[in-house]
Amino acid sequence: MKLVSIVAALALVEYAVFFILAGRARGRYGVAAPATTGHPIFERYFRVQLNTVEQLVIFLPALFMCAYFANEGMASALGLVFILGRALYARAYIVDPAKRGPGFLLTIASNFLLLLGGIVGVILEFE
Amino acid sequence: MKLVSIVAALALVEYAVFFILAGRARGRYGVAAPATTGHPIFERYFRVQLNTVEQLVIFLPALFMCAYFANEGMASALGLVFILGRALYARAYIVDPAKRGPGFLLTIASNFLLLLGGIVGVILEFE
Amino acid sequence: MKLVSIVAALALVEYAVFFILAGRARGRYGVAAPATTGHPIFERYFRVQLNTVEQLVIFLPALFMCAYFANEGMASALGLVFILGRALYARAYIVDPAKRGPGFLLTIASNFLLLLGGIVGVILEFE
Repeated sequence: MKLVSIVAALALVEYAVFFILAGRARGRYGVAAPATTGHPIFERYFRVQLNTVEQLVIFLPALFMCAYFANEGMASALGLVFILGRALYARAYIVDPAKRGPGFLLTIASNFLLLLGGIVGVILEFE
Repeated sequence: MKLVSIVAALALVEYAVFFILAGRARGRYGVAAPATTGHPIFERYFRVQLNTVEQLVIFLPALFMCAYFANEGMASALGLVFILGRALYARAYIVDPAKRGPGFLLTIASNFLLLLGGIVGVILEFE
Repeated sequence: MKLVSIVAALALVEYAVFFILAGRARGRYGVAAPATTGHPIFERYFRVQLNTVEQLVIFLPALFMCAYFANEGMASALGLVFILGRALYARAYIVDPAKRGPGFLLTIASNFLLLLGGIVGVILEFE
């Protein structure tokens, strides 16, 4: 589980970058805590961060389940697709939220396949 | 840990459904990203999704801890109660947020018991 | 992994307290679901809870990776620093959001070190 752990750590580093960018945008665009709205550009950074949380909640357990019950190499490859998709999503979202589609679909698709791989893998183990 | 892994995967599938429903509501009720407010029905779907994230953060580690350190069958049964509670919660919330109580309490209670089971189990292992 | 599991469970108990406090503040300050804004004091409690979710997403996997691939005692100690930092953060945030800095930095720093420890640990295992 070393390979897939590195992939998980990379996804967390990417998320930490989103977290830092959102914090910086809070200062730059003058949105004082506890508000999470008030400036459209800050809201983009904040949504990039929070949407990543919303997806990591599936990604992290599905990644390890897929690696453990199905195949670690396949899970790691799908994990890299997820990380790439998140980067594309974030870059597009900051420029124009309407263009976030392709990166978003890439992360949704890899999450779906990881979850499917994990479920199929664990069911086959029962035989 | 196969049984409890399937229960975890089921909870993730349920969450993915909430995620998709919130995305669809965003389009249907005309709430353009990055906004997360603007139409009361969309806000219900979005809160169902986000509140599930807020609870999965306890549920997933507590489920595996309870299965590993206490009893896998008990953890799996409590996990199914959580999944059922979330379904009741989501259905009630969409119709009328004031009626979300029973489903909410079911998920809170199962999370509490899973966490308690995990903590008691790990403490007993130290003996 | 017993020691680090107890630390993880403690962090979840702390988060559950934030969850309960935010729920109570919702009632006390008259913010009816699905709204998450409307009263500045409720918004503080809600942000304390949600920001903790945003950090637990790194904390929980990084804690276990650091314990597993690097050193369990070190990971557990950093985990306790995280829990303490979150308590300071929550207390300061409720009184005055502008004073949340020190507790926030403590949790960011421990998360950073846990993630670094996990990454270095897993890379060294490849040798």
